[in-house]
Amino acid sequence: MSQAPLRILLSEAARQAAGAAIAEAVGSRGHRFVAPAPGVDADIAFVSRDVTGLSTKHAVLPATQAFHDAMRGARSLRWVHVHSAGADRPVYVELRARGVAISSSSGANAAVVAQTALAGLLALARRFPQLMRAQRAGTWAPLIGSGLPRDLAGQTAVIVGWGPIGRQLAASLQLLGLRIVVVRSSAAAAAAADVQTLAFEDIRRVLPQADWLLLACPLTQRTRGLIDAEALALLPPGAHLVNVARGELLDEPALVEALAGGRLGGAFLDVFAQEPLPPDSPIWQLDNVIATPHSAGFSDGNEARVTALFIDNLGHWLAGGSLRNQVP
Amino acid sequence: MSQAPLRILLSEAARQAAGAAIAEAVGSRGHRFVAPAPGVDADIAFVSRDVTGLSTKHAVLPATQAFHDAMRGARSLRWVHVHSAGADRPVYVELRARGVAISSSSGANAAVVAQTALAGLLALARRFPQLMRAQRAGTWAPLIGSGLPRDLAGQTAVIVGWGPIGRQLAASLQLLGLRIVVVRSSAAAAAAADVQTLAFEDIRRVLPQADWLLLACPLTQRTRGLIDAEALALLPPGAHLVNVARGELLDEPALVEALAGGRLGGAFLDVFAQEPLPPDSPIWQLDNVIATPHSAGFSDGNEARVTALFIDNLGHWLAGGSLRNQVP
Repeated sequence: MSQAPLRILLSEAARQAAGAAIAEAVGSRGHRFVAPAPGVDADIAFVSRDVTGLSTKHAVLPATQAFHDAMRGARSLRWVHVHSAGADRPVYVELRARGVAISSSSGANAAVVAQTALAGLLALARRFPQLMRAQRAGTWAPLIGSGLPRDLAGQTAVIVGWGPIGRQLAASLQLLGLRIVVVRSSAAAAAAADVQTLAFEDIRRVLPQADWLLLACPLTQRTRGLIDAEALALLPPGAHLVNVARGELLDEPALVEALAGGRLGGAFLDVFAQEPLPPDSPIWQLDNVIATPHSAGFSDGNEARVTALFIDNLGHWLAGGSLRNQVP
Repeated sequence: MSQAPLRILLSEAARQAAGAAIAEAVGSRGHRFVAPAPGVDADIAFVSRDVTGLSTKHAVLPATQAFHDAMRGARSLRWVHVHSAGADRPVYVELRARGVAISSSSGANAAVVAQTALAGLLALARRFPQLMRAQRAGTWAPLIGSGLPRDLAGQTAVIVGWGPIGRQLAASLQLLGLRIVVVRSSAAAAAAADVQTLAFEDIRRVLPQADWLLLACPLTQRTRGLIDAEALALLPPGAHLVNVARGELLDEPALVEALAGGRLGGAFLDVFAQEPLPPDSPIWQLDNVIATPHSAGFSDGNEARVTALFIDNLGHWLAGGSLRNQVP
């Protein structure tokens, strides 16, 4: 049976960068690249990083909106591959609800996100916010004068999420001598037998031990609001939090209160309940917080890794196989 | 032959913290603790962290001066153990010149210093100075809008010094996918056979490959001024420098020029030619520099590790054995 050429919705930038590789992967069936415009139809879509651009989940810019609208309007759409590790934006929820398969690029930027989380943890552990304030003031203020930081070795890091980010972060932290506890979708042992592992629902049992609470899990019905005010209150005084996952995992006002009041030692936050972080958010000015604009995964090698993942998945999809990273 | 009690010069704080352990190590010979005062004599001295206090190599505070003077005046002094990893302050040079053995606490805070160097490297790689400026301004400015950071994996780190700091730093960086080149006292292979290793004198051969130049070596006649203007000019454009060793290793004005002009990407500097860093130093205000006040090794577990090292060395010394970390 001869098939119609595969209609692939993608951005002009992605067509230029990856068109030849896509054509080769599709092969003899043939393909047609479809630009995002009102009324187009397509069989599959590739949402490259440039499509999202500077849009956020809560502030969708026109070019991004046009792509989303094209996907919504494409009646034949059966599969969308997304550049990001998470695919929890409303458009993907809608598309999944009508039976479109969504696959993410989980793993493509995992090493970078893990490095950024490690950067945040170490910057807090070594008091960089305090030391950089002194630097701007031109003040020589050695840490011996303001209380010594604690040895990192021997501290406990509770890692929430055991995807490629959590695993790579754990490896670095174990090398630095931290004890790792894993909280994940199931209580099945995460790695070596000596790593304590709990299911999301049991997280409160280990929060009193968490010198570091590191969030690196997807946003799902099980994880939304997982770190609420009561959970935060279970952390030991002076504990630190790192969030490179999603702002909706935690109760942001309760976190702000714990940080502003000094009960928590500090936080590295790359994601927020509302993005961009609103101008009047108190988070911008908290002394013990490093707040970055959802940039933990940005790196110059990501585009090639995402494209390779899409091409690989395209092969599986054309062969009727199962997709890597399909959002359940 | 019965021996006189061992006279041990040490601070009141060290006597309180470690006196019992020292007494046990000395055993039946007996000991006498000597406080730092004019005209005292002693056989050995223990320079604990509190002795140095907030003094620097260039600004010696009165309590530190008093201890140094007591060591200078103690005619029977034969051995001094120092809390720091380096023992290049003038007083130790003087004491060595008159035959006093000096041992350092190299290794006691190596893990902490290595973590701080890693923190500086990662903070620069992930553009924390730029992102934290935007945070203070209340500006949401994702990295996609200002040029993407480079993948760290695949970059080359040239580590100068292969003591415990360099080794631990190398292990973390290799785990993150960086290629390591070692520059050390000899060209003998530093570790696994695949790690390129050069002697200090050959460093210029590898500087053109150095995405990261990491200084973690002692200050000696061979390393003083090692990174001069010509060496800095050999680094590739956009390269970064991390110095957790000694300011005298490099030509600071040339470094400032390379950083201010944008030829180098940035630097993490914990040590300086002059300490405290003078108020009029341009380093304080360089946008692409994280400058910290010689605090890379400060951590609450150091005191116990330094004391343990001293006690261990005391056993060797009393038995006529060789000292650990003796400064050559």
